Amino acid sequence: MDFKEQLAADFVAIQDSICKGLEQEDGKAVFKKDAWDRPGGGGGESRVLMHGNVFEKGGVNFSKVHGALPEAIKKEFKTDASEFFATGVSIVIHPNNPWVPIVHMNIRYFELPDTGKYWFGGGIDLTPHYVVPSEAQQFHQTLKATCDQYHSDFYPKFKAWADDYFFIQHRNETRGVGGIFFDHLQEGDLSKDKIKDFVCAVGNTFLKAYLPIVAANKHKDYTEAEKQWQQLRRGRYVEFNLVYDRGTQFGLKTNGRIESILMSLPYTAGWEYDHQPEPNSKEAQTLAQLKKDVDWVGATAPIS
Amino acid sequence: MDFKEQLAADFVAIQDSICKGLEQEDGKAVFKKDAWDRPGGGGGESRVLMHGNVFEKGGVNFSKVHGALPEAIKKEFKTDASEFFATGVSIVIHPNNPWVPIVHMNIRYFELPDTGKYWFGGGIDLTPHYVVPSEAQQFHQTLKATCDQYHSDFYPKFKAWADDYFFIQHRNETRGVGGIFFDHLQEGDLSKDKIKDFVCAVGNTFLKAYLPIVAANKHKDYTEAEKQWQQLRRGRYVEFNLVYDRGTQFGLKTNGRIESILMSLPYTAGWEYDHQPEPNSKEAQTLAQLKKDVDWVGATAPIS
Repeated sequence: MDFKEQLAADFVAIQDSICKGLEQEDGKAVFKKDAWDRPGGGGGESRVLMHGNVFEKGGVNFSKVHGALPEAIKKEFKTDASEFFATGVSIVIHPNNPWVPIVHMNIRYFELPDTGKYWFGGGIDLTPHYVVPSEAQQFHQTLKATCDQYHSDFYPKFKAWADDYFFIQHRNETRGVGGIFFDHLQEGDLSKDKIKDFVCAVGNTFLKAYLPIVAANKHKDYTEAEKQWQQLRRGRYVEFNLVYDRGTQFGLKTNGRIESILMSLPYTAGWEYDHQPEPNSKEAQTLAQLKKDVDWVGATAPIS
Repeated sequence: MDFKEQLAADFVAIQDSICKGLEQEDGKAVFKKDAWDRPGGGGGESRVLMHGNVFEKGGVNFSKVHGALPEAIKKEFKTDASEFFATGVSIVIHPNNPWVPIVHMNIRYFELPDTGKYWFGGGIDLTPHYVVPSEAQQFHQTLKATCDQYHSDFYPKFKAWADDYFFIQHRNETRGVGGIFFDHLQEGDLSKDKIKDFVCAVGNTFLKAYLPIVAANKHKDYTEAEKQWQQLRRGRYVEFNLVYDRGTQFGLKTNGRIESILMSLPYTAGWEYDHQPEPNSKEAQTLAQLKKDVDWVGATAPIS
């Protein structure tokens, strides 16, 4: 099998295994499969769930698309290549319980066959409605363990990149406690095959990083006030995705498949004018921790 | 009083009268005043309400700002002017009852004092959760009557402009039934004073255009399903405001006062993956009417 076909097959296997793991943790929700074709070439399969025991709304999407390189991408990449190939897996999960964090993962491969250029990208990041430092630490340690198997520079570099990328400029807040983010990963220190292995390893780390936090919190009681705080944090998530998320911007600009692009948006979200949490409340503590450059792995920060 | 001071005073009077009219129609909600200063010069007063009898969340904001022209604006306007002055009133109202439409209004004046350049802009548009053609007609007729007092070209030109501007490209839907939108209005057929009169007349048309529709629907019964449809339509409103709205984009780029900029977002909104209304349902009929170039004034369309 050629490289691209093998990679796409690996991505589908990752999609499968993640859907199974999430369904098992949920105990009720079943992903609905929605296969689609791209008019210009290729297609994908969105897998979406709603109203589970644990997960309120989520998607685990696979796509494998190719064809004439859209003008908007030519401009963005400053290339006159005429063809492209891209494949990836994208996940966003919004849980019911405000003590279970929102999670996002993306792994992707992009190639300009005329020019022989290619690159990988990806990331995983966690958006707790309430920041729990011990959980952020556990999440980052799991990502670091995967990164360290491939290159000792990866975790520190990709952690800092996530801090910069998952940042809501107009709120001066990070989206959550971050994770890793990387782009334009090409042959260099690692061979192309090794990078592929790394990117698939990131995909296979998703359940290990997320499910323990879900399991620890999914039965936790919560109040109406905590549920309302979740609405506001989801509002921020919507702001990030519609204003900054590069995948979303790109999809909107290039006439992408809109339902797959916007599957990241929550079932409900909310806004209040100039909402300020009570000083020293757990909401205020969460806001204080939505900052760049927190060393979550070595967190000597108060562990709650 | 100089032109700018007089205009700003007129805008404040418009803000006052609109707040009073909305409070009266609501019967419970009172606008909370929140005055703010802009670090670089000037300031404003946001007036916001939440959880009224009729209106769930809304804002009627006034601003009058001046100072060094931000770099982002220099670039956008292709000018090397160093100073600016701007004043305006901005409104977005989200009602409780899904049969009462969302409404938006903006009137604004921008000046580059070094160059002597100035222009007016503004607009009013209606976003029903359910399109009722007779109400859209009534709304447009009221706007047209105001426009016609100043220039016979205004209504047709500004109506078409609103169709183009209040358009959600990625959904291929208009935001609602439109209204009027105009920008870069300068001395020409009309004197500067006459344009000022027109823009203030637009502000003073707001209550006349909106309140009759509110009064006719505010006591109407509604179902859970209609409330859920409202959530989805509000989701679209959020998409428009965060992805396309020029005022929002501009505010985010120029470090504007974020709470005033995002006061347009609803208390709650929602998304479902690939939601498709039942064929021939009133939701499907609404979608079918969210198109450009509907002649609402002359609507021989089915009046419901």
